[in-house]
Amino acid sequence: MKAFQILSFLVRKTQLRHPLTCLQQTAKVATSSCHWKSPSNWGSKKHASKRKLLLQVNHLAMDPEIEKQLAPLRAKVKEQGDLVRQMKTDGAPEMDVKKQVQELKNRKKELEDMTLKLYPQDSFDRAKMNDLIKRRFFYDNSFAIYGGITGQYDYGPMGCDLVDNMLSEWQKHFVIQERMLKVNCSILTPEPVLKASGHVDKFADYMVKDVKSGECFRLDHLIKQHFEKRMSDKKCTQEEKDLISRKINLLDGMTMEEMDAIVKEYDMKSPSTGNDLTDAVEFNLMFPISIGPSGAMKGFLRPETAQGIFVNFKRLLEYNQGKLPFACAQIGNAYRNEISPRSGLLRVREFTMAEIEHFCYPDDKSHPKFNQVANTEMLLYSACAQMDGESAKTMTINEAVRGGLVANETLGYYMARIQLYLLKIGINPKKLRFRQHLGNEMAHYACDCWDAECLTSYGWIECVGCADRSAYDLSQHTKGSGVRMTVERPLKEPRVVDSVVPLPDKGAIGKTFKKDAKAVTEALASLSLEVAEDMDKALTNVGEYEVNGFKLTRSMVPAFKREQKKVHVEEIVPSVIEPSFGIGRVFYSLLEHTFKMREDDEKRTFFALPAVVAPIKVSVLPLSNKTEFNTFVTQLADSLTNLNLPLRVDDSTGSIGRRYARTDEIGIPFGITIDFDTINNLPHTVTLRERDSTEQVRMPIDDVPLTIRHLADGKLQWKEVTEKWPKFVAQETTK
Amino acid sequence: MKAFQILSFLVRKTQLRHPLTCLQQTAKVATSSCHWKSPSNWGSKKHASKRKLLLQVNHLAMDPEIEKQLAPLRAKVKEQGDLVRQMKTDGAPEMDVKKQVQELKNRKKELEDMTLKLYPQDSFDRAKMNDLIKRRFFYDNSFAIYGGITGQYDYGPMGCDLVDNMLSEWQKHFVIQERMLKVNCSILTPEPVLKASGHVDKFADYMVKDVKSGECFRLDHLIKQHFEKRMSDKKCTQEEKDLISRKINLLDGMTMEEMDAIVKEYDMKSPSTGNDLTDAVEFNLMFPISIGPSGAMKGFLRPETAQGIFVNFKRLLEYNQGKLPFACAQIGNAYRNEISPRSGLLRVREFTMAEIEHFCYPDDKSHPKFNQVANTEMLLYSACAQMDGESAKTMTINEAVRGGLVANETLGYYMARIQLYLLKIGINPKKLRFRQHLGNEMAHYACDCWDAECLTSYGWIECVGCADRSAYDLSQHTKGSGVRMTVERPLKEPRVVDSVVPLPDKGAIGKTFKKDAKAVTEALASLSLEVAEDMDKALTNVGEYEVNGFKLTRSMVPAFKREQKKVHVEEIVPSVIEPSFGIGRVFYSLLEHTFKMREDDEKRTFFALPAVVAPIKVSVLPLSNKTEFNTFVTQLADSLTNLNLPLRVDDSTGSIGRRYARTDEIGIPFGITIDFDTINNLPHTVTLRERDSTEQVRMPIDDVPLTIRHLADGKLQWKEVTEKWPKFVAQETTK
Repeated sequence: MKAFQILSFLVRKTQLRHPLTCLQQTAKVATSSCHWKSPSNWGSKKHASKRKLLLQVNHLAMDPEIEKQLAPLRAKVKEQGDLVRQMKTDGAPEMDVKKQVQELKNRKKELEDMTLKLYPQDSFDRAKMNDLIKRRFFYDNSFAIYGGITGQYDYGPMGCDLVDNMLSEWQKHFVIQERMLKVNCSILTPEPVLKASGHVDKFADYMVKDVKSGECFRLDHLIKQHFEKRMSDKKCTQEEKDLISRKINLLDGMTMEEMDAIVKEYDMKSPSTGNDLTDAVEFNLMFPISIGPSGAMKGFLRPETAQGIFVNFKRLLEYNQGKLPFACAQIGNAYRNEISPRSGLLRVREFTMAEIEHFCYPDDKSHPKFNQVANTEMLLYSACAQMDGESAKTMTINEAVRGGLVANETLGYYMARIQLYLLKIGINPKKLRFRQHLGNEMAHYACDCWDAECLTSYGWIECVGCADRSAYDLSQHTKGSGVRMTVERPLKEPRVVDSVVPLPDKGAIGKTFKKDAKAVTEALASLSLEVAEDMDKALTNVGEYEVNGFKLTRSMVPAFKREQKKVHVEEIVPSVIEPSFGIGRVFYSLLEHTFKMREDDEKRTFFALPAVVAPIKVSVLPLSNKTEFNTFVTQLADSLTNLNLPLRVDDSTGSIGRRYARTDEIGIPFGITIDFDTINNLPHTVTLRERDSTEQVRMPIDDVPLTIRHLADGKLQWKEVTEKWPKFVAQETTK
Repeated sequence: MKAFQILSFLVRKTQLRHPLTCLQQTAKVATSSCHWKSPSNWGSKKHASKRKLLLQVNHLAMDPEIEKQLAPLRAKVKEQGDLVRQMKTDGAPEMDVKKQVQELKNRKKELEDMTLKLYPQDSFDRAKMNDLIKRRFFYDNSFAIYGGITGQYDYGPMGCDLVDNMLSEWQKHFVIQERMLKVNCSILTPEPVLKASGHVDKFADYMVKDVKSGECFRLDHLIKQHFEKRMSDKKCTQEEKDLISRKINLLDGMTMEEMDAIVKEYDMKSPSTGNDLTDAVEFNLMFPISIGPSGAMKGFLRPETAQGIFVNFKRLLEYNQGKLPFACAQIGNAYRNEISPRSGLLRVREFTMAEIEHFCYPDDKSHPKFNQVANTEMLLYSACAQMDGESAKTMTINEAVRGGLVANETLGYYMARIQLYLLKIGINPKKLRFRQHLGNEMAHYACDCWDAECLTSYGWIECVGCADRSAYDLSQHTKGSGVRMTVERPLKEPRVVDSVVPLPDKGAIGKTFKKDAKAVTEALASLSLEVAEDMDKALTNVGEYEVNGFKLTRSMVPAFKREQKKVHVEEIVPSVIEPSFGIGRVFYSLLEHTFKMREDDEKRTFFALPAVVAPIKVSVLPLSNKTEFNTFVTQLADSLTNLNLPLRVDDSTGSIGRRYARTDEIGIPFGITIDFDTINNLPHTVTLRERDSTEQVRMPIDDVPLTIRHLADGKLQWKEVTEKWPKFVAQETTK
């Protein structure tokens, strides 16, 4: 079975960020601008005309025949894009714009599906790949002997090592090369932290339940499924089909109440049992947890690793001697209690993320190393191109930044570095693009956001997000914790400012708060001008005021000192640029991109993994398991192990060809055969084989270990090996 | 403040395994033997006399003066040890033996405390170390800006890298060198898995609550604290003191009801508020969690990583082509909801473990590489020595295994490998011992168990457990899941056995179970002789019988075929040898063991971390931040970074001495200074300094990067560097 299913819309675009983003965005938010710069007009005509001068034609050749078929679809997208832009310009009502944006999305989807269908694809066979993945235990369902569990996977030896090697390269590529800081923070997270970040209120999907069985359904999925079934019914009239179709198109922008009304109007039942359904509820996707034995401390398993970095910002800044910019990375697990996990590794409840938070001044987002990546060619799918129904374009990151398409150098620098990383580990460059978020699907705090998307049999899937998140996160935690998450920058010239300083009665505070008294006076000392003013008023009018959870009365703060002060520094909330990797998704894409079949034998499937990430670097195959081979096998294996090269000895009785096929399956890039020539002739030689070309050379056994080490480190290319040593030709048969 | 507190008994010995082990062990269990071998007599006289011939005198010299003071305490331990042995031999009642074992433990503790007190210790200053740890962000309380949370820590850049490097060495030392398999399994674990493993029923501490505030107390801690307070009261008579003292001694062996009775008898109240306390309850230490939206799937955060390996046993065996022995490793987080976390990193709610499960035939626990470690000298504290009041003895692991002290070669091999690993990363060999579990504190499934303990300011703390767990875990999961966790071994000669095979009515089964029908027939096909007999009887007598959760009736299995079969293989439940690392505890011990103060300046504290684990390998210090130094700094830093060497450039304005002090603090082993000689003379040279000796050499700048790489990899020793290049002498001042 050849399966190249297009399921891209099943994959929520915002897996790596707030899942309700799409639903909550409004046209108003979409056109709001960031306060220090104005990159607000992605997708606007004016902007686009300027940018087009810089665009180069996509290096993937276009087929005129296919393009002819796509032309009407492209035109439909463009027409709708123009309409949306016009409505926004005219200040049309929010709800009207929303509906048209939804229609735009549908037309884009139609174009994308057709493009994928018409352009020739690899003969990728997902069933065959999954068979290999399962058979050689790359990964598999967790707890299968207990019946298994959806949305959770155990990584076996191969998957585990592949992920580890991907992460080890990630560390070298980002943390060491960029001299980043690194943290490893708690996964059990108290509620106030995630309240401040917005997750407690917004990190939710809508859900209904079967009233009898309790089975849960994601509301939008349920409605869509019901409608699709109805439309496939022969009795369904064209009129009804059109009506339903319109409703499906509007789903994405509906409120929970609107969707609930549809469920009631069409009397929808549980698709499994036919039972009634409950009213819809918001289901928060975080796993709640109670920390400590009393049950008093509410918390959650973190839904992303980023917050751990934000709450440590002050310590990290101090560690960096108070200087900006700096970046901090974290690799670790995160958790989302998906309502109905599916699509294998693409939608799971437990997953690994690798996130970087780059802190910089909001008014200086230049990057000192930008020049080093300036000429990197990238396939960029701009918001504008998406709205115009155009395809993605190849250009250098320098052109994209200089032309204003990518908001700033630092964002561009990371996009290029992300691409370099993905290519290094083996992602197919022809199946990688960077897609810019449309204004209205971007989180409301982000100034510009690009997703690195990989083309897989599930469609284009988001693997890495790269966003300029402005000052959102640090501002939120300042509000939530009362600790100012700011950096001080010396002013060129001192400035005179108003100040309102509380004058606490330390005796009264000490009496009331005892051991917390110090915390209270410290909190008072760090109040902003506005808060201090507020507080003074409240103490007069209401009689009390809360600071960091401490209730203060007038007797504790009898007076406030008002004066003018000369200040020499300004306090700034840093901006954050955030590259965020969904490791499981990159891993899955990598498997699809490197999965191959031998041209002469479709049964011989294998993963063409680059040596740098291959779990096992080399196999050692004695021609037979006769004793005379043993010494050579042991010695060679020990030398390879001493160079920390993971290896596999296969002294089973199969033919060499069959054994090579087994090592190919798990992506072992190099294979050594010990044969009778090894034993009988001096100097002792072996054959060394490369997996993808199946070429072999004959070389002295003593030279092998270091050669493999260099090949595995990418310091030596296979071509150089074939130039240095004589080729060895032997029939490689699996019989 | 010099603090060398002895709090070893606050550290639960069984942190790495079931916390109730101590409470649940009974004398009966303690003397039970494993079925295929009889290593049941640890601590028995007979055994000991044989073993003593092999013991060598501890290489740590004994001080005769101190030994004189310790002699009476040693005698007291021995006297009690003899009594316990005699009682066991005589088959005395379980409860009586338990009481005397408790008294034995108390005497051992007294001896240990006195030994630690009398033998000279380092001038370790915990407060100073903690100050450095906090100041340079090795680790710190999680979520401090939100008030912090006990029992959870965030690792900052230094701690994070140190742990990563420890784990990377662990991977090389164990996984790659031993060619182990590796897995990465789910942390969210469904209840049945942990029911089978015994955690749902037994992984608990006893707890009482303040009836008003809800504050929770660990029952044994509360009673002990109350008694100690009472004894320190002047009004407390000697008679009462003796009585209370006896009760404290018995606490460890008491049931929850017995402890609860004490709380009531002494009318104990909440120590914080004086409020009444609730009745005691068992508090399971696992974090419960609900997987999926319906709330129907109960689960827990895993309390250890081991279970993930056990439930994947069949896949791993298949991956290993059906062969034993093999080992599988897993590194990952585990969670325990401690009632009252304390002692910093030693008792936390979220922690990293690194566990290995080595599967082997129960009747062959030899190890092919044992000879490679046979001569490793180890400080072993046998159960026998503990009961005799003797101190730990140094001997080779070969002597220990041959003499029967360590149960088998594989266990011994891992103990030696554990020691080699710990020494490699910087654990002080003089503060490392292996302590054998006493019969009665060993988990009931273990055949022999040794803890690698590190001496810290909290006393000897268990960092690594190394246990022969026999067939316990796999047998439990066979029972729990119905899947036979066994391996087939060819018999030398075929054997004739009885067989009882169910003959199902596939139609009836298909009708009832539909898509599960296949699972049902498969389950029926794999029933053991005993279960099949049981089932046949039950179907006749009761009319129904449950197999893997499926209720079967007589009509579905109308008959059973009884016959004799010739079998060519035997089915064996493998034994498991388990080294289990508590990474946070090793990390903390390592920090204590490497924390130093300069002899000439106690303010200059630093961590003497081996280069192989040091977070940053090298610092680059230009003499001043003048422009002429910049080119050299940048070039050198880039070359070092290209060799993946984490480095720190410190171009701040402090004196070189002060900057060295800063780099020493975070354990950077090597420092390069770029001075005027670098700029003015050809070839360009720099100074290279080693942290512990503060020695410096002068060498060409081009030779530096590779020299550091080799030093960091342990391929080059500092001594060789000093022999190759001229020494450089300069005053190193912090002023």
